Amino acid sequence: MMTGNEYKESLRKIHPRIYYMGEKIDCVVDHPMIKPHVNSAAMTYDLACDPMYENLMTATSHLTGKKVNRFTHIHQSIEDLVNKVKMMRMIAQKTGTCFQRCVGFDAMNATFITTYNMDKKYGTNYHERFKKWMTYVQENDLMIAGAMTDVKGNRSLKPSKQADPDLFTHVVEKREDGVVICGAKAHMTGMANSHEMLILPTTNLLDGDQDYAIACAVPVDAEGITHIFGRQTNDQRRLQGDLDTGNSEYAIVGGETLTVLDHVFVPWDRVFMCGETDFAQDYVARFAAYHRQNYGGCKVGNSDVLIGATSMIAKMNGTRKNSLIKDKLTEMIHLAETMYCCSLACSYEGVKEEAGSYYVNTLLANEVKLNCTRNMYEISRLAHDIAGGFIATLPHEWDLNNPETGKWIEKFFVGNEEYTARDRIKIARLLENMSGGTALAESMHGAGSPQAMKVMILRESNVEQKEQFAMDLAHVKL
Amino acid sequence: MMTGNEYKESLRKIHPRIYYMGEKIDCVVDHPMIKPHVNSAAMTYDLACDPMYENLMTATSHLTGKKVNRFTHIHQSIEDLVNKVKMMRMIAQKTGTCFQRCVGFDAMNATFITTYNMDKKYGTNYHERFKKWMTYVQENDLMIAGAMTDVKGNRSLKPSKQADPDLFTHVVEKREDGVVICGAKAHMTGMANSHEMLILPTTNLLDGDQDYAIACAVPVDAEGITHIFGRQTNDQRRLQGDLDTGNSEYAIVGGETLTVLDHVFVPWDRVFMCGETDFAQDYVARFAAYHRQNYGGCKVGNSDVLIGATSMIAKMNGTRKNSLIKDKLTEMIHLAETMYCCSLACSYEGVKEEAGSYYVNTLLANEVKLNCTRNMYEISRLAHDIAGGFIATLPHEWDLNNPETGKWIEKFFVGNEEYTARDRIKIARLLENMSGGTALAESMHGAGSPQAMKVMILRESNVEQKEQFAMDLAHVKL
Amino acid sequence: MMTGNEYKESLRKIHPRIYYMGEKIDCVVDHPMIKPHVNSAAMTYDLACDPMYENLMTATSHLTGKKVNRFTHIHQSIEDLVNKVKMMRMIAQKTGTCFQRCVGFDAMNATFITTYNMDKKYGTNYHERFKKWMTYVQENDLMIAGAMTDVKGNRSLKPSKQADPDLFTHVVEKREDGVVICGAKAHMTGMANSHEMLILPTTNLLDGDQDYAIACAVPVDAEGITHIFGRQTNDQRRLQGDLDTGNSEYAIVGGETLTVLDHVFVPWDRVFMCGETDFAQDYVARFAAYHRQNYGGCKVGNSDVLIGATSMIAKMNGTRKNSLIKDKLTEMIHLAETMYCCSLACSYEGVKEEAGSYYVNTLLANEVKLNCTRNMYEISRLAHDIAGGFIATLPHEWDLNNPETGKWIEKFFVGNEEYTARDRIKIARLLENMSGGTALAESMHGAGSPQAMKVMILRESNVEQKEQFAMDLAHVKL
Amino acid sequence: MMTGNEYKESLRKIHPRIYYMGEKIDCVVDHPMIKPHVNSAAMTYDLACDPMYENLMTATSHLTGKKVNRFTHIHQSIEDLVNKVKMMRMIAQKTGTCFQRCVGFDAMNATFITTYNMDKKYGTNYHERFKKWMTYVQENDLMIAGAMTDVKGNRSLKPSKQADPDLFTHVVEKREDGVVICGAKAHMTGMANSHEMLILPTTNLLDGDQDYAIACAVPVDAEGITHIFGRQTNDQRRLQGDLDTGNSEYAIVGGETLTVLDHVFVPWDRVFMCGETDFAQDYVARFAAYHRQNYGGCKVGNSDVLIGATSMIAKMNGTRKNSLIKDKLTEMIHLAETMYCCSLACSYEGVKEEAGSYYVNTLLANEVKLNCTRNMYEISRLAHDIAGGFIATLPHEWDLNNPETGKWIEKFFVGNEEYTARDRIKIARLLENMSGGTALAESMHGAGSPQAMKVMILRESNVEQKEQFAMDLAHVKL
Repeated sequence: MMTGNEYKESLRKIHPRIYYMGEKIDCVVDHPMIKPHVNSAAMTYDLACDPMYENLMTATSHLTGKKVNRFTHIHQSIEDLVNKVKMMRMIAQKTGTCFQRCVGFDAMNATFITTYNMDKKYGTNYHERFKKWMTYVQENDLMIAGAMTDVKGNRSLKPSKQADPDLFTHVVEKREDGVVICGAKAHMTGMANSHEMLILPTTNLLDGDQDYAIACAVPVDAEGITHIFGRQTNDQRRLQGDLDTGNSEYAIVGGETLTVLDHVFVPWDRVFMCGETDFAQDYVARFAAYHRQNYGGCKVGNSDVLIGATSMIAKMNGTRKNSLIKDKLTEMIHLAETMYCCSLACSYEGVKEEAGSYYVNTLLANEVKLNCTRNMYEISRLAHDIAGGFIATLPHEWDLNNPETGKWIEKFFVGNEEYTARDRIKIARLLENMSGGTALAESMHGAGSPQAMKVMILRESNVEQKEQFAMDLAHVKL
Repeated sequence: MMTGNEYKESLRKIHPRIYYMGEKIDCVVDHPMIKPHVNSAAMTYDLACDPMYENLMTATSHLTGKKVNRFTHIHQSIEDLVNKVKMMRMIAQKTGTCFQRCVGFDAMNATFITTYNMDKKYGTNYHERFKKWMTYVQENDLMIAGAMTDVKGNRSLKPSKQADPDLFTHVVEKREDGVVICGAKAHMTGMANSHEMLILPTTNLLDGDQDYAIACAVPVDAEGITHIFGRQTNDQRRLQGDLDTGNSEYAIVGGETLTVLDHVFVPWDRVFMCGETDFAQDYVARFAAYHRQNYGGCKVGNSDVLIGATSMIAKMNGTRKNSLIKDKLTEMIHLAETMYCCSLACSYEGVKEEAGSYYVNTLLANEVKLNCTRNMYEISRLAHDIAGGFIATLPHEWDLNNPETGKWIEKFFVGNEEYTARDRIKIARLLENMSGGTALAESMHGAGSPQAMKVMILRESNVEQKEQFAMDLAHVKL
Repeated sequence: MMTGNEYKESLRKIHPRIYYMGEKIDCVVDHPMIKPHVNSAAMTYDLACDPMYENLMTATSHLTGKKVNRFTHIHQSIEDLVNKVKMMRMIAQKTGTCFQRCVGFDAMNATFITTYNMDKKYGTNYHERFKKWMTYVQENDLMIAGAMTDVKGNRSLKPSKQADPDLFTHVVEKREDGVVICGAKAHMTGMANSHEMLILPTTNLLDGDQDYAIACAVPVDAEGITHIFGRQTNDQRRLQGDLDTGNSEYAIVGGETLTVLDHVFVPWDRVFMCGETDFAQDYVARFAAYHRQNYGGCKVGNSDVLIGATSMIAKMNGTRKNSLIKDKLTEMIHLAETMYCCSLACSYEGVKEEAGSYYVNTLLANEVKLNCTRNMYEISRLAHDIAGGFIATLPHEWDLNNPETGKWIEKFFVGNEEYTARDRIKIARLLENMSGGTALAESMHGAGSPQAMKVMILRESNVEQKEQFAMDLAHVKL
Repeated sequence: MMTGNEYKESLRKIHPRIYYMGEKIDCVVDHPMIKPHVNSAAMTYDLACDPMYENLMTATSHLTGKKVNRFTHIHQSIEDLVNKVKMMRMIAQKTGTCFQRCVGFDAMNATFITTYNMDKKYGTNYHERFKKWMTYVQENDLMIAGAMTDVKGNRSLKPSKQADPDLFTHVVEKREDGVVICGAKAHMTGMANSHEMLILPTTNLLDGDQDYAIACAVPVDAEGITHIFGRQTNDQRRLQGDLDTGNSEYAIVGGETLTVLDHVFVPWDRVFMCGETDFAQDYVARFAAYHRQNYGGCKVGNSDVLIGATSMIAKMNGTRKNSLIKDKLTEMIHLAETMYCCSLACSYEGVKEEAGSYYVNTLLANEVKLNCTRNMYEISRLAHDIAGGFIATLPHEWDLNNPETGKWIEKFFVGNEEYTARDRIKIARLLENMSGGTALAESMHGAGSPQAMKVMILRESNVEQKEQFAMDLAHVKL
């Protein structure tokens, strides 16, 4: 297993073509915009080497029998599923942000099951190929970006019906030694600082969509790939100093790219699905369920930080003992712990798949996400309510550093005199950045839209059985 | 273990002094008002004898090694805690109501731990006494009413400061052979059809409140006890027929009494706490946590029935395929499953106590209840929204039976012609009764007020640690 | 104008065929089930004769120039629209219930406009006929039931496509002297104690539905009419005493009937629409908008009573000074006043119609109702939260009257010793009855389903203009 | 009245000492950070000169009889109060942001009443002084910043008890010709581009706080004043181009300063309160009520833009016809129109003050704000829900302009092919910026904390009367 530093060094050896602010980035490790994202991913490496967190951060590979970083592990038990959630909450408490490794982690676990099931039905050998690649990933402790979300074009049309065939990733050529693919993947969390990407389909597919049923592994710096690094709320503050970013070391969300695949060649031993449209929906659903499971871990850990910041700001304002403030803090905790309960429940109620690995309870995994899309907004609202207008109008840190204005800021932004104005501003900036803009919008996307999720919930909850309960009790016989 | 019928017969042998509508009730088994409550409790006996439900409904006593009804069991594992929740959801799906045995169940489990802890500190022998009584309960498969909630008087005053000393149950005389107690316990679920009650304190106690620190077991028909059976929404409908009650066999909620204790004698071997005020708060908290755990079982099972009834009424109205109706049904499911997740999580995250038994995670148990106090109202609102005004103005079943009017009702209350008007009315009556009045108000009480719960959540969630997370990330050093 | 007593006497002179509990009712004024509804309607007569309320309760008829009860008035100004809302809040504060005259009031105002518009297009003389009938109504100060809601059958089918043609009211024969109609009207608020009914269509109509486009006035005791009086939550309590009903004088909601029209003859001078399908949708929309306007009056007045009861019960429990209790009371007030604001706004923003009368702002009238369908549940939830389990298990009043049990109830249900147990129970019973069952379900129905309303809101809010605002600011030119 | 351009020219003639990013700003009109705020304020001047908006934008001064910009008007009628709300919604639809003139507008109207009342009690001549200054403001069509919010220090202490006496603005010296004041005002909306400020107290004052009871008018460039311009979410984007700011011409919120008052001299004829602590609470309450009234105007106009942007993005995504999307758009409209209703209601229910001007209904004005603090978050949540993750990861506009990356963005960010990727990004950027960060946090502050408001609501809603209603109906006599 690599340490955080070894991970950073390993990134220096690969050379993805990546752009930001109209320029090509030389090295992601040193670039001020991407550095904090590298730091938070590095945390997942460092903690795995810390004996204190061994139980949560590592596991024993069922492929090699060796200890591996949990983020490269195929879940072998209910305990693995639960530890995933607890690990995520813990890392999020330490970083206050997205650490970007769960997408690949979930993609790998979904692919493990789906390749097994495809082979069983079609006699293909995707599963063995995939295990071989997974062994390589574990041995080298690689960071993998899960590459599911296509750009999708007109959302009311299936992939093969789009005006531009590239709006969903597809095979444009099958060769003896492999396939050539075109397309683009959007919102690629952690892609900029991953070693490889694991591509999978993004939606259910119908007859005629065969070319779109493609799953494969590709290095992030493969020929034909261009990454465009996306903006975040307040990203420019990083270029001007530390204080105003709130969380200068780890940022607030994960860095994300638009990743363009322009005639990228993939050799056959890295192809894990090719044409099996009937497995696309289940594949997507499995990835999504694993991914929804996470939010009650990472988002709750982030909420712990935000609740802590809110409690501190109340102390600094002199309002922490007010019973209505306490009531609101409790409400924030309630909203966070409810998400945590859902993640734990969908993990504990997981099942063993025929492939041998463990899968979450999908109905309950949907609950995680549905609560998350609402609760994160309410948690932010309450944070703002307690913090007040303060966070909306704080001065630039350079004004704090300029003696002419800094003296006034230091004098007038003291609240409760036990704390300095500068510390109060630091906490306010953390709270501000964690509770608005991209940080909020991010709660909504990922793992499917709330609408799609609701459809799934209805399908999976066996309403007919519930109707029967009602008819039995009302003595209705049809 | 008794069957449902044996349970009913056993009730005929005891003679509690119980009043309703100004009259003393002869036999609770035959009384039309109490009969459905007896039926739902009987279900807990019958299902325990059904091999299909053996896993959920029974357990192996750690006192005798024999198979016992789970409702008399002291939890010996995490699995026991989880099975409790799943059992409750299952029974609620079959009865659509409260089956009244959980209060005693929870009181016994709380008492098991507290007596152990008291003995450890004070060298008393409450724990051995209690185990002896528990063995008797298990051997005879008794139904026990948990008797916690005192009438409380002025809620801003402690027990010993009330205008009337009897407003909290207390010891009025200590004799060589036992104690004499006075007081009254309110909202006594299942008391009318239990064999015994297990009395415990209802609030934390201070110096001066020693006489109020009393826990003991008493038969429901002991000398000095009077029960007054409470009203429920629409209770009178039971006296006039079956259809309008919605769920004629099992009713909608549990029957509850005001139980007056007028100089009741309790021999020492049935006394499990006497004067140890410093244990009262923990005792109450343990009972409450076990009890909050339940709501994600029983209320979710009830919600399953209500959701089923709502889905049926939409079919009968011809609106079931409307996408907004489906969205609302999904929302109802979401609200229910969120409660279920919290109950599962607080069970799976339970801990082994020094006494040897298992206890739930209290922070997460509070989440169950807090979600329940809100979600049940929202579920009802959505049920009404989909059902429409129909449920608010349905005619009396005697009008349905009168040919003069019945012909019109049968003609005009047909919706979707695949269903009869009578069946539509039956489902509507089930829905009406499950979604209003007492059924709703009951979601609010039990196991402490929402205010009290919020105070607990704040205490248990370690806000200081969260503050430290925030300060670390914001680089604030105090 | 009649007094309340004159109104009651006038009811003795008409003889509708009305059933309840399987029996025909002799006289609605004396029947214990209908009496409180008569009382609350009588309040609308008495207050009109009270000089203190003259401004709100009366108006000057534009037909006769005489002073009339506002409930028979055609709105002549914005002030009339606003006074309607204020009148309703005031009466609801005095009765704590539905006073049943608004449906007819709204039907008359909608008919006034629609008959004018039909005549203009088709050269019919409906408007003159209607004014003649209105003059008769005003001169005799009649109570009119608005009869819109048909039983509707399968809601996914139009009237003429139903399996049974009678599921919507329709003309079965046109004669020289008038028409003969068949059908049934459901949820007929106040019908049992009205003098006449004003029938109007219940949905938009298409070609082929001509027979369903019928509006007319009919005495409630006309040949061929049968009324079946519907049940309400806890209605039977009225037959057993006063205390448990909570509000014995006026009940909790309005009494409602299923009114069957079996070949009812209507002379031409009482027919106000006959075949004009293209006016049905607008007619229904106008009635609905006037009706939605009301909820921020009557429901807010009822909420005032419920908030008052909740505040009293907190005093009686000794919790009124707790800051979280005060916060919840404030929240209840907030939810109520928001509804009031919407009613005021849709009135003040009303417009003058070509017919000469005033009409509400329909977009804002929809807001009243949409808030009402949610806020009433939340208000009830908060009332239960503050009141606690107390209201769910109170004993029967006959147990309070029986000395054996009454002595215990009087002793143990004292809270704050400044109040007696009996007074505490009275307030609790008022709160219980106002906050559950039918009282809640009623908030949902009336004036169209929330779904229908949302469709209207989207249609009326000019989203295209909003899109243009956004495009202008984002510099998008299409 | 000035035009927008004349207003801009007038700003060039004053020279406030104002800092941003550590540097003194030469001219606010030209500075890229402040320019859009100047533009939106200029809109209030331009529209007043446009005959199309004369009714909403102008009024007749009761001081001079001349036509004045409504923002300098003292309300003379209910119609004035209503037109204020409608004017604000209209301007917000055109600017999509805060136009910054309402704080001064409200401060002037509050001061008009309070000076009258002080003079009446104390025989002072504040009112005449104030009218003289108001005449000057109207004649010169000045933009006035309302300067209420002090920095407040430890919020649990009164002004005179703070560790640093300057944490609330106070008089440090009374001279023959005027007073000298020290302190700082925070969150000063529009201060950077106003001509003068009107200072008023920020909280109720007690005995001992006399020096803090100060109201006065001061030019923004008076000796001793330093302004520090605050940061906003994504403010730096303005320095790099237009597209990513979403609304490049007018920005998203109002610009705000920390305004330091370091021994500022104010001549007596500009002092409108000096020592009258007993009027502070009422003064603050009046300002706050006028200010709360606004939110149902400006925030609703902004919501109109946001709803329009969301509807457009759904069209561009190809999801606009989905019924759940339509339902969510309707919900956004519902939340916005509810706020509008509250603003209209508190205006229409306004009252004439003894001073001759009109004042809003304060209870209902509080409803505006309370709904606003919640609804704006829910509106944003729904906007994000419909827009999806798209807005969280969009690339920098320089990447769109770089041909290497721009070609991919143009190709892959096409949704529905009727629209270009660039237009889709423009709308997404507008939506992103309007729905997060400062735009949200701003909904919470201003015109007092939600807690303070709730206390006011409880006080003003006459709960005792509501209790009496309940007691009357429950037949309770105390």
